[in-house]
Amino acid sequence: LNQPELPERSDVLAAARRISARVLTTPVVSRASLNEALGFEIFFKCENQQRTGSFKFRGATNAVARLVEAGVAGPGAVIATHSSGNHGAALALAASQAGFGSQVVVPRGANALKRAAVARYGGQIRDCGETLAERESLLEALIEERGALFVPPYDHPDIVAGQGTAALELDQEVPDLEDVWVPVGGGGLAGGSLLALSEGRTRVRGVEPQLADDAYWSLRRGEIQPQKPPVTIADGLRTALGRIPFALFREFGLTISTVSEDEILAAQAMLWQRLKLVVEPSGAVPLAGLLAASRAEPSAFRGTRQGVILSGGNALFPGGG
Amino acid sequence: LNQPELPERSDVLAAARRISARVLTTPVVSRASLNEALGFEIFFKCENQQRTGSFKFRGATNAVARLVEAGVAGPGAVIATHSSGNHGAALALAASQAGFGSQVVVPRGANALKRAAVARYGGQIRDCGETLAERESLLEALIEERGALFVPPYDHPDIVAGQGTAALELDQEVPDLEDVWVPVGGGGLAGGSLLALSEGRTRVRGVEPQLADDAYWSLRRGEIQPQKPPVTIADGLRTALGRIPFALFREFGLTISTVSEDEILAAQAMLWQRLKLVVEPSGAVPLAGLLAASRAEPSAFRGTRQGVILSGGNALFPGGG
Repeated sequence: LNQPELPERSDVLAAARRISARVLTTPVVSRASLNEALGFEIFFKCENQQRTGSFKFRGATNAVARLVEAGVAGPGAVIATHSSGNHGAALALAASQAGFGSQVVVPRGANALKRAAVARYGGQIRDCGETLAERESLLEALIEERGALFVPPYDHPDIVAGQGTAALELDQEVPDLEDVWVPVGGGGLAGGSLLALSEGRTRVRGVEPQLADDAYWSLRRGEIQPQKPPVTIADGLRTALGRIPFALFREFGLTISTVSEDEILAAQAMLWQRLKLVVEPSGAVPLAGLLAASRAEPSAFRGTRQGVILSGGNALFPGGG
Repeated sequence: LNQPELPERSDVLAAARRISARVLTTPVVSRASLNEALGFEIFFKCENQQRTGSFKFRGATNAVARLVEAGVAGPGAVIATHSSGNHGAALALAASQAGFGSQVVVPRGANALKRAAVARYGGQIRDCGETLAERESLLEALIEERGALFVPPYDHPDIVAGQGTAALELDQEVPDLEDVWVPVGGGGLAGGSLLALSEGRTRVRGVEPQLADDAYWSLRRGEIQPQKPPVTIADGLRTALGRIPFALFREFGLTISTVSEDEILAAQAMLWQRLKLVVEPSGAVPLAGLLAASRAEPSAFRGTRQGVILSGGNALFPGGG
């Protein structure tokens, strides 16, 4: 297999300039009482409060803007993608802001909330079956028959570079972090964060659900492993690892730890109770990883400053509506 | 009946100085996309992110500090109160920070989450029955037999002055608001807000659940009306109106509107979905009131800047834990 073209740190810096007018500089929050109880400080980057409710809007905005810059997308363009989650809504809004239409191929079993978000932001949903073959044939038809431009959810240099801007902002606001904890699904956020932080001393720490630990095993075995059945509550992390992220993980020596479903729920509850923030299960995974690591080796964390990217906030309102 | 001693604006200013080291200056947040959709701007004062999860910590901290200043509370003091909600936890933490113990009389049917919070912040829970007579005899016993110092939940000048500091901070951060919307339960927050904003052009607008509209009817009839049965989901607003707040409402001509249970839930869902903030039903009541008023008379709101105090965030995590 030929090597994919890898984005570089300069691509993250360029993405930050390119998308700055459209993407929110989300808040970084910290709680003195929580920090005191833990014995170290946590700075939370609130991508749950990003437009469309997740960091995915960064990469989608960057990728669409690049299509325009390259002269590929012009008036009347239609952008197509596949997504069972936040990327679909993010791409729909990014396309709509650029004046384009969008077609989002969504498997029938996808999260109802995330399907609704695609429609809310002006995307047209194209239902497909659960298999990869069905998804790809529908996408190919959109591309060949309707001339749609394909923006993949994570395995693309412009997407990875765009996602890296969240860690870049966090680093600019809190420059002396020991680690920045990120979830690993397709790997776009982790890959982009590795690029963004590749010049300083801050390490990126990837976290996966134990029930979706394909990236962990991919790194151990040196080749991409298939994803497990989609059963984790962290529905945003059920995707297979991308080739570009995997190459970046190997280049920068990313360490990935895994957490149980109970640890994910406990982290989500802590964010709810202590920060009053709505975070979806996938978005609580990095905090779960940090808490597990700090319990396992308290002395390594005491007095340190830790960053956590709260990657998404699209959880269903329990009161309905 | 003799008139109660009313706090003044200078008491709110003094409270702000007195409590500034212990109370969080909570964020004020606004969302461009929401403002665009509504046609006017809303600035949310996030008291749901205040210590102990509600504005009640402001009044409790002020009242305890005043007892110390007056030489009434010294080493070994015990503070007592009654509360079925956020005041109990707020007072427990305020007492504990001053080095005092606390006893909180809680009716047996109270919200389990709020009972747990009293204990978490070091308060001792004293169970009582649901009637006023049972509550008062238990409180009297604590005061007479154990020398406890009583800090009531809202009908006290130091509590009202402390609660007013939230509106004061909002006014300092966004000085040109047309209205500031607050919930009305016992009336401490609304009364304190009236004092805080009594010198500028910003109006205070009180909102109550239709199922707990005693303050609305008290103002219409010119005397305090009994509260209705405690059935509204806005459990923080089931209390009877206090005499000091009522006197302030009349002095400043507060207008109070009422909202349905569905309107409260819809406002809570909007805060969840658009701001990713956890707000308890009582804390969503003022937004519900603002939305209802702006639907009824859109032209009166178009282009205006509105303030909303998100008074509390102590809602049960739906995932358990």
